[in-house]
Formats: sequence, structure tokens, C-alpha cells
Amino acid sequence: MSWFAWGDPARARELDPGLRDLVAQVLRARFEALPPVPEEQVELPPTRLDARTRGLFAAVVGSEHVNAEDPVRLRHCGGKSTPDLLLRRAGTANPAPDAVLYPADHDEVERLLAVCSAERVAVVPFGGGTSVVGGVTPLRGGFRAVVALDLRRLDRLVSVDPVSMTAVLGAGVRGPHAEALLAEHGLTLGHLPQSHEYATIGGYAATRSSGQASSGYGRFEDMVVSLRVATPRGTLEAGGPPASAAGPDLRRLLLGSEGTLGVITEVGVRVRRTPERVLDEAWTFPDFRTGVDALRVLAQSDTRPTMARVLDESETFVGAAMGGREASPGCQAVLGFEGASAEVDARAAAVRELMAGAGGTPLGPEPVAHWRENRFSSPYLRDTLLSAGILAETLETAASWTGLLPLYAAVSAALTGALEGDEGGAVVMCHVSHTYPTGASLYFTVATAAGADPVARWGRAKRAASDAIMANGGTITHHHAVGADHRPWMAAEIGPLGGDVLRAVKAALDPEGVLNPGKLIPDPG
Amino acid sequence: MSWFAWGDPARARELDPGLRDLVAQVLRARFEALPPVPEEQVELPPTRLDARTRGLFAAVVGSEHVNAEDPVRLRHCGGKSTPDLLLRRAGTANPAPDAVLYPADHDEVERLLAVCSAERVAVVPFGGGTSVVGGVTPLRGGFRAVVALDLRRLDRLVSVDPVSMTAVLGAGVRGPHAEALLAEHGLTLGHLPQSHEYATIGGYAATRSSGQASSGYGRFEDMVVSLRVATPRGTLEAGGPPASAAGPDLRRLLLGSEGTLGVITEVGVRVRRTPERVLDEAWTFPDFRTGVDALRVLAQSDTRPTMARVLDESETFVGAAMGGREASPGCQAVLGFEGASAEVDARAAAVRELMAGAGGTPLGPEPVAHWRENRFSSPYLRDTLLSAGILAETLETAASWTGLLPLYAAVSAALTGALEGDEGGAVVMCHVSHTYPTGASLYFTVATAAGADPVARWGRAKRAASDAIMANGGTITHHHAVGADHRPWMAAEIGPLGGDVLRAVKAALDPEGVLNPGKLIPDPG
Repeated sequence: MSWFAWGDPARARELDPGLRDLVAQVLRARFEALPPVPEEQVELPPTRLDARTRGLFAAVVGSEHVNAEDPVRLRHCGGKSTPDLLLRRAGTANPAPDAVLYPADHDEVERLLAVCSAERVAVVPFGGGTSVVGGVTPLRGGFRAVVALDLRRLDRLVSVDPVSMTAVLGAGVRGPHAEALLAEHGLTLGHLPQSHEYATIGGYAATRSSGQASSGYGRFEDMVVSLRVATPRGTLEAGGPPASAAGPDLRRLLLGSEGTLGVITEVGVRVRRTPERVLDEAWTFPDFRTGVDALRVLAQSDTRPTMARVLDESETFVGAAMGGREASPGCQAVLGFEGASAEVDARAAAVRELMAGAGGTPLGPEPVAHWRENRFSSPYLRDTLLSAGILAETLETAASWTGLLPLYAAVSAALTGALEGDEGGAVVMCHVSHTYPTGASLYFTVATAAGADPVARWGRAKRAASDAIMANGGTITHHHAVGADHRPWMAAEIGPLGGDVLRAVKAALDPEGVLNPGKLIPDPG
Repeated sequence: MSWFAWGDPARARELDPGLRDLVAQVLRARFEALPPVPEEQVELPPTRLDARTRGLFAAVVGSEHVNAEDPVRLRHCGGKSTPDLLLRRAGTANPAPDAVLYPADHDEVERLLAVCSAERVAVVPFGGGTSVVGGVTPLRGGFRAVVALDLRRLDRLVSVDPVSMTAVLGAGVRGPHAEALLAEHGLTLGHLPQSHEYATIGGYAATRSSGQASSGYGRFEDMVVSLRVATPRGTLEAGGPPASAAGPDLRRLLLGSEGTLGVITEVGVRVRRTPERVLDEAWTFPDFRTGVDALRVLAQSDTRPTMARVLDESETFVGAAMGGREASPGCQAVLGFEGASAEVDARAAAVRELMAGAGGTPLGPEPVAHWRENRFSSPYLRDTLLSAGILAETLETAASWTGLLPLYAAVSAALTGALEGDEGGAVVMCHVSHTYPTGASLYFTVATAAGADPVARWGRAKRAASDAIMANGGTITHHHAVGADHRPWMAAEIGPLGGDVLRAVKAALDPEGVLNPGKLIPDPG
């Protein structure tokens, strides 16, 4: 994975000059290219890990699994938000972990946490490193040093139960690897977030991830049957039975804990049979409101597609333009159906009737095929734009159906208001990609000229959008998690007693506070 | 509600002498009638509530809403487990609350908790009083006194959002009242546990209740969109947006907290449109294994009934005998479908094909109609049997599909082993009534002669069954909750760190520990 960009460096592309000119015209701005500095010019702070502590880690994992070399530290110095990439492109790799540890299994993780706790070393669990909210930034807090705990060696399919349709996966298993391991048994997880190619099972659980087909497969947290978690105070196992009334569901306290309460090492998940049939259908609606209403009708019916999203006018237009296709007026929706053949056909027919009744016009499968081809490539496009001097970033929220369009208007206005000015304009696009009976998500994509100080420029826009979200009944994050970036809004999200609860749980499991300091949990008061 | 039995005293029945003789033959035992003592002979401990503290409570709710009279205390001295009823029938009402408080709203609840905390008075939230696990037993712990906090005045439909399909209900709204309030808007909750006629919305949330149609409507915890909770440290609100990744889901920490972490005062729930059509269908299977496998096929398909249960051979036989019908061999399953007419027909047709393919034979709707008529009457039958000297009690668990039949065998053997002996035999029956993709519940009903000491006799059986559950991959409770009765198994259920987490959360929200002491949360070590 590239140190300054998303994913595979071989897949990096230059921006087509024609497209560049078009974007310049739309944004009313000129761009200065923003190429990354050469890797050897990146400044890393010297490692603070002393030989004695290093020896303690090596005694657990072996000296070959404690790495303090600069290229390795650089590749663990944060996630993949646009500000993360901007800083790294400019040659800044501070903070960086003082070392990267590679435990082999649950027991080694537990023993490393005991060392970190005793030695006052902060520890940042690291899966795919795909956080876009500062979730893996190696903040040292008040500790002597900070290490990244890379879980890539926890990469096994631990067990499969094809009768109960469950499987246990190591936390370090990446999305495509999980699907390959399960496919050998004719099974699938069906969890495909945009980060799928790099993200890990443990990361999905730690961040309450939601995949593109969440309408059918559910959010990741709803797939989790059991969790095994290492903490500085020992092992916590939660879940197992299909349902229980034996007190609060402690799985749900660990799901979304973002490495602040423990390190998830194994995840028991519900699996499904590889679908016999995948059927796609695109639709067009005269406007966003009508398209959103149609998705609400589907989400509240007993007959739902497996995947459903509707793009606003701007994202529909830009999508067509980027794909070199003619932009049709209105808003596009893409639906997907997966399952047993007869069941898919019956479901698609019932949905077709609901969509037509809600004001939609069918466009056939082709636009969905186009979407499927490009579903994991947006982060590459972001890098192409960044290199050309165009800042592109996303943010997301969710609200009730009643509150959704007012929230959409408020966040759009906040973003536009914060970005329009001397440095040009902004294109703000949005889609609804996760629907529930009671509401839906909003996913915004923003493109604007990088300007003189792109990190500060985006920071202003992000703060304005986040404030608008909190003032208009949204959640600060629907599926990107909290990390360091959303933490300032957590007190508003969960209230003072909610913060007290999280701090109390943390004190019980991580008394020294070494686990991922500066993330998720708000400060008191 | 009767003080020594379930429900409405007018619905009490005597046991038919013919049936009595049949039961005697099956159980190889003679019964001594166990009539309740007259109410005036019940011994209540004197109230410990002093005038000053009573005045502090009255200052919050008004003196007419603080009641320390014996008939009221008696009706708040515990739940409705068979041991609860046996003790009360014998004239024992100890423990009893020292007074019963009736707050009008959330703010009064919060102020009462502050008084309890300052004055060291234990407080037991009381909804319908239907607990069968000692959840509302007024244990005083180490406190000066104990009061029951009866939430019946929190009985409003606070708000409805027919677009987002949500409603906010007061915690004290009873099941039928909730349905009546929602029906005015053409809506339903669809949550019908056996306790429905008396149980409250707050109790459903506090105990992670599951209704008879959970296959279609989901468990109560899955319907909860938001919670408002009063604690000794103030108000905690959780949830709201349809989904979020903003840290752990704190709703799930309050759901199932059984009044130990706070008092739930308002519950936001997902609602549905009143179904257009209800379609019932009974099936028969050659044996329990085949019937259970058929339910697994349904639960793992994308086409499910709204309600599905299968009875084992013994429960099938006894059900027919009690209904005066001819018992067919094998096992009976009852399915129900609710929803829009066309959708119900299509779903039922698809399910019919799966059931036939899994070895089932259709029996038509009649047996389901019989079940629907009697769905809430089993607790009355229990009282009839108790009066005749026949002990009848239930217990329940859940496990993965792989583990389900081994668990069934182990628990059946434990119950039979503990009860067979000089005092006669036992009939152990079981049904599966809640199914999930990864597993299902088991609900056991046991009938046996009361014997010389029925409370001790059932205690032995319950302990044997609970130990068998924990040793065979079950959960100590699928939907009856923990209370005082299951608390001894909680350390095994959630492990030592799980206990530490619950104690830490309790200390954060209820620093004096006045909320429902002796329930749910295991002791350390």
C-alpha cells in the first residue's frame, strides 16, 4: 500500500487534461499540482523506544516481529483521510509509531498489552490502516512511547459451522481474503465497504462498518455473533448464542470501541451461501426527493433489494460526466438483488412495482454494472485529483426519514458556505446508500481547489459540516467511525453521562489508559 | 392483578377432575391441593420507611403517590415465577417494599432517584410486575429501606412519526394499551410476549424481551430506536438516528440492564402498519429433529414466516390432550404470516414449498387458531394446576443450530433426573419459538407433583437445568432475563471481565448502588 495515497501504487493515474480543464471551469479555480515529496525526504521523528522495552516486546513476539525501521513506521503513521494524505505528500510523518509490533495470535496480543500497560507505552491497533477519521494516528498521549500493533498475522479462518452458518475469522483477515476463505466452503460474508480491498475483519468490528449491500446483508455489527478481545486486564469474550436476555449485550460495547477498550482478535460472524444469482437494475427519478421517498418505501416494505442507493442531481451529473456518458436529467438510483434464483426474481418483480409506483423509470442493468466496476476505485480517483491540486473528500451521517432532507440541505449549505470564496467554488454531491426502516445515511463528496493551505481549508469545511450535522438531528458518523477527527463532537453525540460510561468501561479494562489514546472517548466535563 | 396468581382473578378456573386423574396417572403421584391463604393472613414485614424520608418522596410526587399500605405493598412484593406464587400462596410476603412510589413523569423519576441515593434507600423499578426471574423482588441489600417505583403513570404515547415509522412511548404503557394507542394511527408494534396483557414497554426494554412473532417483528431490543433513562446522576439519552458508528451503541447497554443502571422512562420504537392480512398454517413433522431442521431452513432463507414455532413430541401430545383433541403422532409446527395481502400470499407460498421440502405435512389453519386463542392463557393454567397441587414452571435458553438438540437432550435429562423419585415423575415438554439464522431458543415446560416442599423441589430442578445449560453452550436466558434467579450463573455467562464492565458502568451511573440491588450484576471474584 502506498505511503502517501490509497492502495496499490501501480493503479495510480494522471488526471486527463480535458477533465482537468472542465473541473477548473466548474470550480472557477486554477490548480497547482501537489506531487508527493520523495520518500527519502519524509521527516520521521526519531524512535523513542529504548532497548529494554524493545527487548520486552521481542520476548513476546520474537525480535523479527518488532520493527522500528523508517519505511515501516511511515506506513503505520496514520490512515487515509485527505488531510492524512496531504500531510504525508508534503513530507510530514509526525506522529509516527516508535515501532510496529506483529503478534502471531491472541495470546501474544494479550501479553503485549500487559507489557504496554506496565511500561506506559501507548498502543494503536492497526488492521488495514484505512481509517479516514484519524483512528490509527499514533497519538502518544502522555505515555513514554507509542507502538502500532499490526494484526496482519492473525489471518486465519479459525472455524466454520455450515449448519449454524457461522464462521470465526482472525481480526487481521482482509476483506478479499475473508471472501476467498469462505468461498472455499460455498459461503460469503457479503460485507463490501469501499475500503474492502484493504480493510480487515477486526477493523470492521472495531468501527461498526457498513457495507455497500447493507440493505440485504446488514451492517457488520449485525453480522457479529461473537468477539474475542484482548485487554490489559485479560481476555473478554462476548456473544456466542444466537440471542440472549442475559443482561446488556456486551458485544455491542466492544463493537465500535475503536481499539480504546481492547484489541479484537477473533470475530465470529454470520455467513450466507454464495448467491446463486445477482440481478441489477438502475432507475431514474425526476428529483432527489422523489428518489429518496422511493428508497423509503422499499426500506419500510417486507420486500427489499440487497443493495440500494440513490444519487442526488449533482452526483448523478458528475458520475455521468466522469464516465464519459451523457448525463440524463434527474437522479439515478442503483439497485442490486442477491440470493437464490427464484427468490431474487420474485423479489425484484415486487420491488419493480414499488419503484414504478414511487415515480421511478427503469434504466436497465448497465448503469449498475458501471457502478460495480468502479465501486472500489473512488479513493484512487481522489489521489489523481489531489496530485492535480484538487481536494476531494467525503463525509457521512444518518437521520430519520423525516429529518433526512432538512439535514441534507443544512450540510450542503455548510460545506458550500465554508468553501466558496477567493479560492474558487466547491462541488458538493451526495448519495443515500444505506437505508433502514426508520431512516437512512447521507454520504457527501466534496471537490474544491486545494488552495494555499488545503489542510486548513478542508478543516474549516469539515467543522462547518459537523456542526450542521449535530444541529440538525444527524449522527456525527454513520459508518466512518470517530477516531481523533470526530472526537470533538462525541460529547454532543452521547451526552455527559454517555462519556462517563465509556470512561468507566475503559478504566475497568485499560486502567493505565494505553489503548489508542486520544480517540473516540471524549474528555470529561 | 391477583396477589397470589397471574392476572385477572375472574379468569381463575378449577382443574377438571378427569384431567386431574389423567395427570396423576402420568406423573405417578397424588396431589394435595395448595389453596392460597386468605389475604388478611399474609404476613408482611413492618415498613421501615420513616416519616422524614416519606416526606422527601412526597415532596416530589405528592403524598397521594407514596403508598405504604399493606395491600399495595403485597402487590409489589415480587413477580410471577412459580416459587414467587408458592410463597405468596403460603402466606409469605417477605421481602416486601417499604412503600410504593408513583411518579408522574421522567423528571419525578429522576428526582426520586436522587432522594433514594442521598437517603440510602434501594429502589426497584416496577412495570407490569410480570418477572419470572425475581427481577422485581424488593431486595433491600445493605440499604435503610427499599421502595418499589411503579411506573404506571408514565402511560402516554409521547409522539408518533408516521413517515419515519417510529413512536415514543412512556415506560409504563402496557402491551395492549400500546397497541391501542398505535392502532389509532393505523400502526402496530407487533411485540406479543406471553406476558403481553400486563407487561410494559419499559419492562420489555429493560429485560430484552422477545415476542411470539419475533421471526417477523424482531426482538424488542431490535425495535428500540431511542431510550430516555433516569439515573441517580441525571438523564442519559441514547440512540435516535437509524444507525451510527459513533462509538459503542449505548442503547444496548441500557437494554437488558433490568433497572440496575437506571430507570427507563421513555422508549422510541420502530412501528409498522397494521397488517392487512394474517395467514396461519400448521404443519406436522415425523419427529422434533425434522421439525427443528425445517425451522432452520426457514430462518436461513430470505423468505420467512412472521411467527414460527415447533413443539416436541411431548408438548404436541399434551397440547392435544389438554385441548380435548386427538393427538396426532410426531411434532406440530405453527406458522403465521402478517403483512400486505399480496406479499403475505407470496411469502406463504414460498415457505410452503420449503416446509414440504423439509419433510412437513400441512395441517391447515385450525391448530394455529387454537394456539392464538390460548396464547396468553398458559399462566392461568399454571395457577389452576398449582391450586390442585401440581407444580408447573417454564425455563428457556438458546443455542446455535448445531448445539440445539444436544442442549435439548442435556436440559431434558437434567430436569427429569432432578424431579423423578419418591414424589413421582415429571413431564418435560419443549418448543422452539424464536429462530435466528444462526440458532434458536428452547422453551421448556415442566409439570410435576408439588411434593412436600415445592419451592425446594423446583429449586433443585432449576439448578440442574441451569448447570446443564451452561455446560452445553446455551445462554442462561433467551428472553426471561436475569433478575435474582439467574444471577448465580452470570459470572459463567459473561466472564470475570464482563462482570467488571457491568460493575464499572453501574458505579458511574449509580454510585451509591441503590438501583435494584441483588439483580443481574454478579459479585466480583
